[in-house]
Amino acid sequence: MSYFDAASAAPLHPVARQALQASLDEGWADPARLYREGRRARMLLDAAREAAAEAVGCRPDELVFTASGTRAVHSGMEGVLTGRRRVGRHLIVSAVEHSSVLHTAEVFEADGGTVTQVPVSRAGEVAPEAYEAALRPDTALACLQSANHEVGTVQPVAEVADVCGAAGVPLLVDAAQSLGWGPVEGGWSVLTASAHKWGGPSGVGLLAVRKGVRFAPQGPVDERESGRAAGFENIPAIVAAAASLRAVRATAAEEALRLRELTERIRARVPELVPDVEVVGDPVRRLPGIVTFSCLFVDGETLLHELDRAGFSVSSGSSCTSSTLTPSHVLNAMGVLSEGNVRISLPLGAPAEEVDRFLSVLPGAVAAVREKLGAPSPRTAGREDTLVVDAIGKRCPIPVIELAKVFGDVPVGGTVRVLSDDAAARLDIPAWCEMRGQEYIGEEPAERGSGYVVRRLS
Amino acid sequence: MSYFDAASAAPLHPVARQALQASLDEGWADPARLYREGRRARMLLDAAREAAAEAVGCRPDELVFTASGTRAVHSGMEGVLTGRRRVGRHLIVSAVEHSSVLHTAEVFEADGGTVTQVPVSRAGEVAPEAYEAALRPDTALACLQSANHEVGTVQPVAEVADVCGAAGVPLLVDAAQSLGWGPVEGGWSVLTASAHKWGGPSGVGLLAVRKGVRFAPQGPVDERESGRAAGFENIPAIVAAAASLRAVRATAAEEALRLRELTERIRARVPELVPDVEVVGDPVRRLPGIVTFSCLFVDGETLLHELDRAGFSVSSGSSCTSSTLTPSHVLNAMGVLSEGNVRISLPLGAPAEEVDRFLSVLPGAVAAVREKLGAPSPRTAGREDTLVVDAIGKRCPIPVIELAKVFGDVPVGGTVRVLSDDAAARLDIPAWCEMRGQEYIGEEPAERGSGYVVRRLS
Repeated sequence: MSYFDAASAAPLHPVARQALQASLDEGWADPARLYREGRRARMLLDAAREAAAEAVGCRPDELVFTASGTRAVHSGMEGVLTGRRRVGRHLIVSAVEHSSVLHTAEVFEADGGTVTQVPVSRAGEVAPEAYEAALRPDTALACLQSANHEVGTVQPVAEVADVCGAAGVPLLVDAAQSLGWGPVEGGWSVLTASAHKWGGPSGVGLLAVRKGVRFAPQGPVDERESGRAAGFENIPAIVAAAASLRAVRATAAEEALRLRELTERIRARVPELVPDVEVVGDPVRRLPGIVTFSCLFVDGETLLHELDRAGFSVSSGSSCTSSTLTPSHVLNAMGVLSEGNVRISLPLGAPAEEVDRFLSVLPGAVAAVREKLGAPSPRTAGREDTLVVDAIGKRCPIPVIELAKVFGDVPVGGTVRVLSDDAAARLDIPAWCEMRGQEYIGEEPAERGSGYVVRRLS
Repeated sequence: MSYFDAASAAPLHPVARQALQASLDEGWADPARLYREGRRARMLLDAAREAAAEAVGCRPDELVFTASGTRAVHSGMEGVLTGRRRVGRHLIVSAVEHSSVLHTAEVFEADGGTVTQVPVSRAGEVAPEAYEAALRPDTALACLQSANHEVGTVQPVAEVADVCGAAGVPLLVDAAQSLGWGPVEGGWSVLTASAHKWGGPSGVGLLAVRKGVRFAPQGPVDERESGRAAGFENIPAIVAAAASLRAVRATAAEEALRLRELTERIRARVPELVPDVEVVGDPVRRLPGIVTFSCLFVDGETLLHELDRAGFSVSSGSSCTSSTLTPSHVLNAMGVLSEGNVRISLPLGAPAEEVDRFLSVLPGAVAAVREKLGAPSPRTAGREDTLVVDAIGKRCPIPVIELAKVFGDVPVGGTVRVLSDDAAARLDIPAWCEMRGQEYIGEEPAERGSGYVVRRLS
C-alpha cells in the first residue's frame, strides 16, 4: 500500500512513538499536584511546551496544548472575538480556510456577528490588498491559513499580517498544514496547529496567542493550560507531539526538496498521461508534498475506489466523496473543475518508486471510471441549433458527461442547455467550457434546479 | 514511592498500554476516509465504541468519545440545556459535584439560567427528596455524580433518576469516579466518564446520551462523533480506554473487596493513631478505594509535603493546597473540618504493606506539622470571661490554633471571639467546636473579616 494522504493524517513518526512510550510511565499523573509523580508530569509538560514554543517561534507562556487542531481553532477564534468584542463584531476569513475556521465563523454570524470572506485567485491564493479592503473599524479578527489543505497553495501570510497589524487587527494563522515545514513568518497574533499532521499523535493541538492580544477564553472555567484548554492534560501525547515536531524540522529542508521534486513530477506528468485533466493550485508557491488535480467525466468516489484497489490511499474534494454532498468549498472558491478530484499528499519519506507506480496506474484507473460512466468520445456531425439535456436528479459527473455526449450534435454557434439540480454542475460546466474552449453563457433558473447554457465555438 | 492518588489519575493499566501500542500502527488514519488505512481506523473505533457501550450499559450509537471527562461534562450539560431550552432554563446540581459540572452551571447562570444546588448530609450524600423538591416545571436538566471524588460517598443515583424520570427531567450522571467499578444503575439519561480515572490513557472521555433525550450540540459544527465531540478522533487512546475498562471490570468485584478492607483499616486506625482527626464521608455507602480525613491544627500543604518526603503521594481538599485559596467546596457543603485534609485514593493493586507503612508514618508527620505551627497542648487555668483572638491576615489552620491556645484561659461559660478573614475559618471553627464538645455561637460581622464566637462548655 502507498499512503498518499498525509494532509489528512500522517503516520506516527518514529520519534513520536519513542517519546510517547517513554512518557507513558512518567507523564500520566496530574501536573497540578505537588507530589513526586505530579512534579515529574509537570516537568515533562514544561519541557514539551518549551520545545513546541521554540518551533512555533513564540514564548512558552504564549502557547497552550489543546485536544486537537480543531479545538485550537475554535478556542483561538472565540477567545479573540470575545476579547475584542468592544472593538466590534466583524470577522475576516479567506474563502478557502479549513472547515473548523468557517464553522466557527458561522456560529459567530448566527450570534449576530458579520463575516467577510476574502476571495482567492484561480490558484487558490488571497491578495493582501483584498484583506486590506475587507478591514473595517469594527474588525475584531482576521484569519488566514498558512497554506491550503486541499491544493497546497501557500498564502502571503506575512504581507496579510502587515496589513492587519497596521490596522491594529490581530491575524489568526491556521498553520496546520505547514508547521512541520517551518515556522510561520511575519507578525501573526494567534497561531493554531495540529500534531497528527506532522507525524505527532492524535489528540494534540497547539494554540499560541501573542502577549498583548486581547483574549477571553470561552466556556466553563478550567484552570488547566492557562484557562485556554479545558480538561486533563494528555502529557504523553504532548511530549510525543513536541519531540516529533523537533525531529521533522531537523530534516525539513532536505525532505522538502525531495518531495517537491516528486510532486512536480506528478504535476507535469499527469496532464501528459491522462486526457482532460486540470492540475489545480499554485505551481510555485505551494507546499512540498501536496498536488491536486481534477479529471473531467470522472466520479471522485469511484476513482478513489479504483486507486485504493491498486494500492493507493488518496483523498478527494469531489462532491461525491464528502458526506455533505456539495463540492469542496476550496475548489468552488477557486472556480476550478471539481469532478474527479484527487489530492495526493505525500508523507515524509515517500519513495520515488511509489510515485512512479502511481503515475503508471492512474491513466488506467481514470479510463476505467470513464468507461463505466459512459463518458463520450469526440463526435463530428452537427444538426440542431439548440439542444436541451435533462440531467435532473443525476449526480456529478453525469451532467457534464451528458453535455459532452450531445455537444457534437449542435453546429458551431449553437447552444446546449443542461438542466441540473446538482450543485457541482455550477462549477463543473463552466470548467468544462474553459478546458474545451467553448463559451459558457450562464445559468438560468429552471422549474427544478438550473439551466446551464453553453455555446459551441469550435 | 506509594501513589495513593488514583482518584486524580490512575497509572496506565497494562492492558491500556498494550492496546495503545498495538493500535498506534492501525489507528492513526482518518476514520472518515474510504481507503484501507481509514477503514482499519474506523473498525478499531467501532469496536472500541461497542466495548465501551457495553461497559456503560447503552447502545453504541448513544456513546461518543470526547477529549476528556471535563469535555464530556461540558458538552453533555450544554447539549441538554440547549436541547430542552423550550422546557425552561432551570438546572439542578448537587453541592458536591465536580468542578466541571459547577463551572458549566456558572456559565449557564451567567447566561440567564437558574441553578438550584441540592445540599448534602454531613456524610456527603444527597437525599432523593431534595431533588424532588428542587424540580420545577421549567427544569431542563438535573445532574448528580455517581460517587463523590473527594470523600468517596456513593450517591443514590437510581432513586434520584426515578424522581427526575417521573417529572420528565433527564438526569446527567458524572460517573468519573465509579465507572471502573461497574455500570451506573437506574434510569439515567446522560452519562459522562474519564478514562484516566480507571487506568486508561489521558485524552479520552465518554459521553453517553440516551435515545429520546433532546440534545443540541453546541459550538461550531463538526461531523466527527455524531457532531458531539469536535476534532480528529484519538483512536489509539480510545482503543486503550475501552480495552482497559473491560479489563478493570473483569477484576472489579474482587479488587473492590480487597481495597475496601484496606480503606476500612485506614478509617478505623487513623483516629486511633492521630489525635484530633475527623474521618469524613459515608462509612458504608462509599467507593472501595477512597478515604478522607482532616487533622485539626494542621496545614494541608505542609502535611502533603511531609508525606511526600516519606514516600506517599496523596491529595488534599484543604484551602492551603488548592490554587483557589478557598477550602474544598465538597468539605464545605458537608460542613466538616477542612484543615489538614488528606484524601487517600488507592490504585488497583495497592499492596496492603504500603497502607500499613502509611499508618505507621502518618502520626509522626502530623505531629511534625503541628509542632512546626505551634499547635497547643491542653491548658487548665481560666481567668477572663471573654477573650478576643486577632487572627486577621492569618491563613488556615492558624486561626483555629490561636483559638485552641487561649481557650483554656476563659472559664467554663466564657466565650472566645476569633477575628479572621480566612474563608476556611467559617468551616473549621464550628468543626473544632463539634470535635471538642464546645458551643459554636455564631459568626458576626467585623471591621475586617468576621468574628467567630465560641462558648466554653467544659
